[in-house]
Amino acid sequence: MEELSRAKGTRDFLPEEKIIRQSVENTLKKIFEHYGFSPAETPILERYDVLASKYAGGDEILKETFKLKDQGDRDLALRYDLTVPLARVVAMNPTLKMPFRRYQIGVVFRDGPLKAGRYREFTQCDVDVIGSSSMRQDAELINLAKDAFQAIGLQVVIKVNNRKILDALMETAQIPEEKRTTAILSLDKLKKLGLEVVKKELQQKGIFSEPIDNLCRWISIKGTNDQKIKELKKILLNKQGLLEMEEVLSYAPEAVFEVSLARGLSYYTGTIFEVFAVNSPISSSIAAGGRYDNMIGLFRGSGTVPAVGISFGLDTIMDVVSTQKKEVKKSVTQVFVLPIKEFIEANKVAQELRDAGINTEIDVMGRSVSKNFDYANVQGIPYVVVIGPEEVKEKKIKVKDMQSGKEETTTTKQFIKKFLH
Amino acid sequence: MEELSRAKGTRDFLPEEKIIRQSVENTLKKIFEHYGFSPAETPILERYDVLASKYAGGDEILKETFKLKDQGDRDLALRYDLTVPLARVVAMNPTLKMPFRRYQIGVVFRDGPLKAGRYREFTQCDVDVIGSSSMRQDAELINLAKDAFQAIGLQVVIKVNNRKILDALMETAQIPEEKRTTAILSLDKLKKLGLEVVKKELQQKGIFSEPIDNLCRWISIKGTNDQKIKELKKILLNKQGLLEMEEVLSYAPEAVFEVSLARGLSYYTGTIFEVFAVNSPISSSIAAGGRYDNMIGLFRGSGTVPAVGISFGLDTIMDVVSTQKKEVKKSVTQVFVLPIKEFIEANKVAQELRDAGINTEIDVMGRSVSKNFDYANVQGIPYVVVIGPEEVKEKKIKVKDMQSGKEETTTTKQFIKKFLH
Repeated sequence: MEELSRAKGTRDFLPEEKIIRQSVENTLKKIFEHYGFSPAETPILERYDVLASKYAGGDEILKETFKLKDQGDRDLALRYDLTVPLARVVAMNPTLKMPFRRYQIGVVFRDGPLKAGRYREFTQCDVDVIGSSSMRQDAELINLAKDAFQAIGLQVVIKVNNRKILDALMETAQIPEEKRTTAILSLDKLKKLGLEVVKKELQQKGIFSEPIDNLCRWISIKGTNDQKIKELKKILLNKQGLLEMEEVLSYAPEAVFEVSLARGLSYYTGTIFEVFAVNSPISSSIAAGGRYDNMIGLFRGSGTVPAVGISFGLDTIMDVVSTQKKEVKKSVTQVFVLPIKEFIEANKVAQELRDAGINTEIDVMGRSVSKNFDYANVQGIPYVVVIGPEEVKEKKIKVKDMQSGKEETTTTKQFIKKFLH
Repeated sequence: MEELSRAKGTRDFLPEEKIIRQSVENTLKKIFEHYGFSPAETPILERYDVLASKYAGGDEILKETFKLKDQGDRDLALRYDLTVPLARVVAMNPTLKMPFRRYQIGVVFRDGPLKAGRYREFTQCDVDVIGSSSMRQDAELINLAKDAFQAIGLQVVIKVNNRKILDALMETAQIPEEKRTTAILSLDKLKKLGLEVVKKELQQKGIFSEPIDNLCRWISIKGTNDQKIKELKKILLNKQGLLEMEEVLSYAPEAVFEVSLARGLSYYTGTIFEVFAVNSPISSSIAAGGRYDNMIGLFRGSGTVPAVGISFGLDTIMDVVSTQKKEVKKSVTQVFVLPIKEFIEANKVAQELRDAGINTEIDVMGRSVSKNFDYANVQGIPYVVVIGPEEVKEKKIKVKDMQSGKEETTTTKQFIKKFLH
C-alpha cells in the first residue's frame, strides 16, 4: 500500500477537537429542543433520482453529488443536504401531524473543488417546520438562530431577504422570467466576487445592460430596515414579498434586511436568511436557510406543503470558534486512578467514582508512578487519586489536585461529595 | 419520477423512534465517558486501498463494501466499520499519547443481502484503547459493556473467548495453518447454522474429518468457566491464550467463557467477546469486539501497537429495546403555548420558558383553540399554557395539565418554579 492517507477533503477529529465540536453540537441540540423541535434521522444513502429530481437542489449541486451503485445495480447517491431527504420523508408520510417540527444533525457530502475551508464531508445541523406558512414561523427560526449563537458565545448578524422581492425586482427590471433562476445564482456570488464581476456574469447570461444596472442599483439600497422597505415600495410592481418581509421583521427586529441576499439553492420560494459571525476572519455564512413552499408538494405529486428551515454549518461555526477559544481539552477524564500494587482495590474506587457520575480512568498497564503522573498531566486530567498498600490499610485515598499541586488524604465518599459540590 | 422511495436497506427515523434512539445513544456516551473515553470522529469516506488493505477487515467484508469515485477519479469507499479507520488515524499520528482511549458513534455501510434485521446503513458505537496490552484492559471493556447495558436497562450475557485458544485448538487438531483463517469464518456461523452444517463447510474447505471432529468436540466443552479452562489445559499444546483468558475472567468474573465463539473479522488476535440480550427474541449479538494487536503496526509499517475495542450495535440494541419498552414520545416539547389573539405577549412567555430550560412550542399559525389542543394531545405534550386578553390584563397564564386535565391560573415564574420543582 502507498502512503497512508485520508480521502481528499475529509478530516479526522481527535479528542481535543471533537470535545469542543461535541459541546457546540450539544448546545445547538439544547436550543433546538427548547424551541420544541424533536430529533429525526434520514439515511446518508439516497436514491439518485430523489436527489436529482427537478424539485430538489438543482443542477449546480448535482454536479457535486457523489454517485454510487449497490449490488443490485441501483443508482444511489450520498445526500448533499438534509432538506431534500426531509422533503422525501414528509412526502412519503402523508399522515404526519402538522406542523411537523424536526431537527437533524448529520454529515452531508459534496464532491467540490479542494480549497481552504471547503470540505467534501461536513456536518449540517438543520431545523425545519413543515406545514406552517405563517411569517411568524420564519421569524421564530431567526430568533432561534439568535439564541443558538448566543448560547455558543458568538456575536452574529442575521441577514434576511425574500425571494419574492428579488423576483419582483427582476420583473420590474424586465429581466425575462426564464433567466431569473440563473440570475439568482449569479447574485448569490455578490459577496464573494463583487458587483462588477457579477454584472459581467449576468451579461454573459444574455441579460441586457439596463435591466442589470437597475437590478444592481436596487439591490444595493442602503439604510435601516424601514428605509429599505420604504424605498422598495416605490419601485416594486408586486409587493407581496415586501409585506412578508415587514411581517418577519416585526417579530424578529434584530435581523438585517439585505436586498442583495440571494442564496444559491434553487428551491427557495420566500424568506431567505444567512447568519455571519461579527469580528471574525471567517467571512462565509455560519447558518443559512429559508422558505421552500413548493418542494414537498411537488415530491408528493399534489397540493402545496409550506416549509421553512435553517441549517447551521457546524464546520464553519467551528472555524469561527477555533479563532476565539483558547482552552483545549484533550480528554473528558476528570479523575485518574493510580494504583500502587493494589489494582483490585483501586479498581473498586474507580468504579465507585464512575457510579457517582465522575469520568474516571485507571492505569491498567502497571506503569511507574512518574509515567502515570506524566500521562495525567499531558491529558490535562484535573485529579489523580493514588491508592497503595498504605491507603488500602487506612481505607483512604490520596488525591492530588493537578492544577494547584496540592495533595490530601481523604475517603472516596468525601472526595465524591467535594467533587460534586 | 417513479414512486418515491428510500435506498434499499436504509431507514428513516421519525421523532417517536429517534427520541428513544437518541436517549440510548446518550446513555452509551455517558458510560463511555465515565470510563474516561473521549470522543473522536473519522470520516465516512475512506480511500478504498485503506479499507482493502490486507491488514483490515478481510475479503468477506470487502465484498460488501460500497465503492465510489471522486471527481479526481480516486477510488473511495464508505467505511464498513469504525475500527479500520481508527487504525489508520493512529498509524498516521505517531505522537498520540498512549494509551489512546476514544469512543466514536457513527454510521457504517455494508452492501449485503436484504433481509429482516439487516441494514445497509447502520450505527456502531465503538470504544477502543490503543497502546495497552494488559488483559486488565480487555476486562475493563467487558465491565464497561456490563455497566452500559445495565444503564440502558437490558439484561445481557457477555460471552468471551480468545483467538489464541482457537488457534491452539486448531494446531493441536492438526488443521494446517493456511486453513485456519477460513476455518474461523466457518466457526463464526456455528450459532446461526448449527454444528453439522459448519462441519460440512469445513470439509468442503479441504480439512480432514478427524481434525474437524476433534476441534468440534473441544469447542463444545461444557461447564463453568473454571471447568472449561481445566479441561482445555489438558488438551492444548500452547497455553498462552488460556492464561490470558484466566486473567481476563479474574477481573471480569461475570463474563461467560465460550470456546466456540469465533467472530467473523480476520483482524482479531486475542480476546474476543460478544454480548447477547437475555430473554429476548433477538438472537444476534448486540455488542462485540476483541483484541487486534497487529493491525495498527502493520498499517504504520513498523512495530506492534496493541489494541482492544468493543462495538455496540445501536440498531440491534434498539430492536431489543423496542420489544420491551412501551412508552412512545412523539415530541420533546414540554409546554405548548396557545395564544388567543395575544401572540406577542404569549411569545414573550414562550421565550421565558425556553430561557428557563423548558422545551416550549408556540402556535404561530393562529389555529383554533380546539385544533391546538388536539395537536398538543396527539403530540403528547404534557402542558398547554393559554394566554388571552384576560391573562395579559391580569399578568397571569392559564396552565392545563394534559394528563390530569386540571387547569390553574398562575404566573409564569410560579409555573417555572413548579415545573423544575
